[in-house]
Amino acid sequence: MPGDSRAAGTHRSRPSSSKELPDLEDEELLLAAAYVSDAQYNRNVHFETSPQAIRLYHFYNHWTMRAATYFFIWVDLALALFEEPAVFPLPFLVTSIAEVFCLTAFFGRLVHFAKVTPQNVFWKDTKNICVVVTIVLTLIDLVIYGSLEAVNIRGVRWSRALRPVFLINFPESRQIRRAFRSIRNTLPDILYVFLLFLFSMMIFSLMALKLFGDRGLRTVDGRPYFTSILDTAFELYALVTTANSPDVMMPAYELNWWYSLYFITYIIINTYIFMSVFLAVVYNNYRKHLKCCSEHWALIRWLLNRMQCHSGPVLGGHLFIADKMNFLRLADLLNIRVVAINIKKHPLETWMPRVYQSSTSLLVQKMVQHRIFVWVYDVIILINAIFIALDEKDSLISYAEWLFLSLYIIEILLKLYTYEPSAYFGRKQFWNWFDTLIIIAALLATVANTTIQARKYNSQQVLDIVLILRILRLLRVIISIQRFRVIVTTLINIGPTMLTFGGLVLVVYYAFAIVGMEAFHGKVRFLDPGSGSPDALVCGNPALKDSAFAQGRYCKNNFNDLASSLILLTELTVVNQWHILADGFALVTHQAAKLYFIGFHIVVVILIVNIFIAFILEAFFVAYSLEKSEVETAIEKKIQELGVGVQEEEVQDGGLIDNMDTKDSGFSADEGDNRKKVLKGLYFRIASKKYKTVDTLLQQMFESEIAPEGKDPSLEEILNFSPKKPNFDNLA
Amino acid sequence: MPGDSRAAGTHRSRPSSSKELPDLEDEELLLAAAYVSDAQYNRNVHFETSPQAIRLYHFYNHWTMRAATYFFIWVDLALALFEEPAVFPLPFLVTSIAEVFCLTAFFGRLVHFAKVTPQNVFWKDTKNICVVVTIVLTLIDLVIYGSLEAVNIRGVRWSRALRPVFLINFPESRQIRRAFRSIRNTLPDILYVFLLFLFSMMIFSLMALKLFGDRGLRTVDGRPYFTSILDTAFELYALVTTANSPDVMMPAYELNWWYSLYFITYIIINTYIFMSVFLAVVYNNYRKHLKCCSEHWALIRWLLNRMQCHSGPVLGGHLFIADKMNFLRLADLLNIRVVAINIKKHPLETWMPRVYQSSTSLLVQKMVQHRIFVWVYDVIILINAIFIALDEKDSLISYAEWLFLSLYIIEILLKLYTYEPSAYFGRKQFWNWFDTLIIIAALLATVANTTIQARKYNSQQVLDIVLILRILRLLRVIISIQRFRVIVTTLINIGPTMLTFGGLVLVVYYAFAIVGMEAFHGKVRFLDPGSGSPDALVCGNPALKDSAFAQGRYCKNNFNDLASSLILLTELTVVNQWHILADGFALVTHQAAKLYFIGFHIVVVILIVNIFIAFILEAFFVAYSLEKSEVETAIEKKIQELGVGVQEEEVQDGGLIDNMDTKDSGFSADEGDNRKKVLKGLYFRIASKKYKTVDTLLQQMFESEIAPEGKDPSLEEILNFSPKKPNFDNLA
Repeated sequence: MPGDSRAAGTHRSRPSSSKELPDLEDEELLLAAAYVSDAQYNRNVHFETSPQAIRLYHFYNHWTMRAATYFFIWVDLALALFEEPAVFPLPFLVTSIAEVFCLTAFFGRLVHFAKVTPQNVFWKDTKNICVVVTIVLTLIDLVIYGSLEAVNIRGVRWSRALRPVFLINFPESRQIRRAFRSIRNTLPDILYVFLLFLFSMMIFSLMALKLFGDRGLRTVDGRPYFTSILDTAFELYALVTTANSPDVMMPAYELNWWYSLYFITYIIINTYIFMSVFLAVVYNNYRKHLKCCSEHWALIRWLLNRMQCHSGPVLGGHLFIADKMNFLRLADLLNIRVVAINIKKHPLETWMPRVYQSSTSLLVQKMVQHRIFVWVYDVIILINAIFIALDEKDSLISYAEWLFLSLYIIEILLKLYTYEPSAYFGRKQFWNWFDTLIIIAALLATVANTTIQARKYNSQQVLDIVLILRILRLLRVIISIQRFRVIVTTLINIGPTMLTFGGLVLVVYYAFAIVGMEAFHGKVRFLDPGSGSPDALVCGNPALKDSAFAQGRYCKNNFNDLASSLILLTELTVVNQWHILADGFALVTHQAAKLYFIGFHIVVVILIVNIFIAFILEAFFVAYSLEKSEVETAIEKKIQELGVGVQEEEVQDGGLIDNMDTKDSGFSADEGDNRKKVLKGLYFRIASKKYKTVDTLLQQMFESEIAPEGKDPSLEEILNFSPKKPNFDNLA
Repeated sequence: MPGDSRAAGTHRSRPSSSKELPDLEDEELLLAAAYVSDAQYNRNVHFETSPQAIRLYHFYNHWTMRAATYFFIWVDLALALFEEPAVFPLPFLVTSIAEVFCLTAFFGRLVHFAKVTPQNVFWKDTKNICVVVTIVLTLIDLVIYGSLEAVNIRGVRWSRALRPVFLINFPESRQIRRAFRSIRNTLPDILYVFLLFLFSMMIFSLMALKLFGDRGLRTVDGRPYFTSILDTAFELYALVTTANSPDVMMPAYELNWWYSLYFITYIIINTYIFMSVFLAVVYNNYRKHLKCCSEHWALIRWLLNRMQCHSGPVLGGHLFIADKMNFLRLADLLNIRVVAINIKKHPLETWMPRVYQSSTSLLVQKMVQHRIFVWVYDVIILINAIFIALDEKDSLISYAEWLFLSLYIIEILLKLYTYEPSAYFGRKQFWNWFDTLIIIAALLATVANTTIQARKYNSQQVLDIVLILRILRLLRVIISIQRFRVIVTTLINIGPTMLTFGGLVLVVYYAFAIVGMEAFHGKVRFLDPGSGSPDALVCGNPALKDSAFAQGRYCKNNFNDLASSLILLTELTVVNQWHILADGFALVTHQAAKLYFIGFHIVVVILIVNIFIAFILEAFFVAYSLEKSEVETAIEKKIQELGVGVQEEEVQDGGLIDNMDTKDSGFSADEGDNRKKVLKGLYFRIASKKYKTVDTLLQQMFESEIAPEGKDPSLEEILNFSPKKPNFDNLA
């Protein structure tokens, strides 16, 4: 270990090298492992390097601890289901005790982290401060609300809207934080476009007011047409979302068809151009942001790399890295696993080789491997689809259902007979898993249903589940058609990253739902219209008489519990008719309530939905332009040279997507017919992690933009790069 | 002229060099000019090189000929306004004679082109064949319809839907053709996604039918809920467009809130994911296509370049081009105009120098140039906005209007006094033009209005125009705010290319409008509801009784003339409530009519609107990443070195958009205060054509992706590149 690197950097809490020398190598291995794992999972945590702290850090990153944290976060969020207004009401005492438990857990996690990281770093991190402040605020709120409750005054549980803070601010939710940071970075650019958009809207509102306000026109439900500036602005904002088109135009259009030009101009400018510009701004920032973080990540890997150079003996590093491209390659190596594929014999072949190798058995296997077998089952699925579409009350058809179910089970059994089961249920064999699970579930549900029916009792839920499973089976047709399979595979592969958006949406929805419940709880109620009560027609609130809200039978869209609120917010995200919902809640409270709905539209539709679209676009572009990374190609070549490689299938049809998929689906049992003949024994191939997350794809893409030659960051750059620099001088 | 290039290529119709030697130089100059102009305007026409043909070709490209062609195309398209069902009815004889005139003009244009281009090339071009076939079909249709008319049988004027063919297929409409080609190239990819989308829709339809069909549920207007497969499919297609959300969900949601999960899943998969994938596919193809054509264009320029090398003396070409990058630079040079800017003295200074240079006059000039002058007028505009918002019936306010008008006129006069008028009304001074035109128009309209009012006669049209002009004046506030101005400038700059989409949309709208008028003409009529006739409530068609169409007062949305049809199609493009319109027209004709509306949605919303969004996105990305091209920088440096350059303003605020704008707004009179002091005399600067079309921007972007080194196309590649290769051996 060279002594010069020991001179660089300041040492904190560094153990005396003479005293702990016997343990040093183990410690170093632990530290190195921590760094490698951080780099591999893209973490950027500054931790102390004392042996104790490293052990604590390993414990901190242990999956049980992380799982426990997530468990408490979800419990905390789920409390809204049980608190007033509740889906399943529980007394305040129970929920508040549960909340205190959660807060304790969060506090414990934070204390654990504080032990790992140096104190000054800990208190500089806004994440930790956010969590501490939220815990304190929640406790204060709990105490106040509890005291008011004790004297029978109903308070506002405002701190509940802060609960998503825990989901965002624990280091595990890096993805969601990144998404939020991306939004924050977009805000200044969005703001200018938004102001311009508002200005354009005001100009048009003024025009509408002057052109149509004095004509005494009436809308179809008899309200005055464009008479007040606030109403006009709201109507025109709704028109941007297209929610009230063409109704808002009709009175003017009936008066004179020239007036339609006003609305068409408005829609072209504000709906088409401005909304596209919003998407462009969000998308552009999203790309910029990705690029920034990809470079950031590359720098971390560079650091890791340097560390490995210095600690050569520890990691057995006989690698000498001279230029930046090589770090990236090394880091790539960390992400590429070369797996040994053991093409096992079929268990039956081992147990009873004579029977399995008999001519009948071989014929069956050959038959199952033949593509006609696949076609026959495609036809069966289509016939099944027709039967499902037909009336199921006919007893013949319900018997047919049993027939189809047994046919599918036979298919799976035959496949398991022919293909090696652990290959058939390989980790990448999404469709085989899907197939089998659907069939087993359908079998169970059908049996359950029949049992229940035999007892003359009809459970709608079970029936519905049977039905859905029966229809989902039809999705199998997609597997047979290569082109379809390929698009679906791409979608499934970007699935995990889509979950980030799930998290993002959840955070925003949760906060809005809590605010909505506090503001609009109980104002609108759904009463069974069959009861004939006149209240049922106005959603239990006379203020809604003759409103479009009540006429549209929207009473069920209310904020009376968390589930209803979330569904209502989903409807607002879809945008259509949101102005009627906003109008309804404004009628039962105050016109200012519309601001809540407009705010939701701006945050969710203009920001988050656009980020989602940008993400899908980028993911598809990357998928379209994807090539294997250099390193992978090199390793694969090496494997081939060694003569132990698995031949990749020939690319069918051409086209980029196909290309991708064939590379990835790799060992699909359906296509194994040709290969099985040649491949028996131990082979290697690259277990590509390419599709693990699209993030990786994107990083791959942007890395190609980092200049390969010369411009290595200097040590100063690296050290100034982040306040959380790891000090690797202990390794020296 | 080297003899070796004469050996290459075959010569057609080549004049004997000995006989026409005296004219040869002129001819060559003409030919070279034609090539240069073709390359510069991105034309790719194979024309004969006989002197006569070249002259004809120059005449063919003359602006009068092109203008005449466009005139006849527009007359032909406008005929639909005068034919039954007409906005302004004219007898069939008149419109048919007009149409025959147009057809003759098109035929003449085609004959002219045939004289210019070799015959075999002419007949290989599908464009020409299309035009000929359309002319013949239209004539046949005219004869048949005329004969039927003569015996009082009403025929179908089907050939009218073909009229946009003329707009597309004349060589002048290159942009629109490119857009159509882009759509055609997108189709295979879109098709697979669309089939998958349909499959997903059918799966969900089947589920809906089974889950909700037997429950006896009713929609809010009392129709059965998800009972027939076709209705279900239509409802779910409408849900993809979000048009019937959340209404379509409410009956199931009221039954059990779990069912809302079905609809939320459906919307996430089909509305959000599939619609984004459509955008991704269209966008990806759009980018690929752009890249292809940009390379194509580069090759043409390469050819031009070679030609210039061979014909050195003719063009005074002392350029020797060794590598590909240099061609591109040369071609860039053709597009960069270095203009001599003559910073003229103010005319008043020439006429009466003593008065203009007097201290009072200089004070006025200094005052106008000061930024406080701008601020004062911003405040005036804001006060004006308040006055407009107030009630205008007050006589004080109508006097105030005169005050504001005169203030604005004084402002313009002061500016014209201070700044040199031809600089103030420079070609790039969009806002100065806008300002002046709005004020003059407002002045005229206000005078007209007052005159009319004095005669106790109130014209609503004039009043409306006065109003709109008065409000448009407020747009001037944008000029003052740099950030806004910059976004608007970007939007204005991509305006011309947006007109391509105008053309594209017009073609599709026109064809759909003609089909719609033939199919739905007179089925729905707008009758004044004030008349109290019961027919007015059902749009004159009893089939619409109790329909959402009639209840929504949509009677004015009909296909009874071209204007109404186009407005209706615009409403369908906006998507909202389109299912009610489709349903209405299906009720008065046949359920199959819904296919017309679904087809329109697929073509216009899924294809064209997505291309439009892709275009805006791409344009903004290019704008965000724009840098001056290398050549421009080099030339500018040269100009600077020569000491005759105009200093560019310092970049304010930073940020890319600003950067662009300051470069481009160049000689804005508003900012001229500092510069005027130093600059008197003749200066040069680059008259950037950067913003002429975004196409150029995009090409610039993609050219950077053409490998700069080595890979020059070989002559064979060039010659095989296109069947319409120019034979430049005459130049040798």
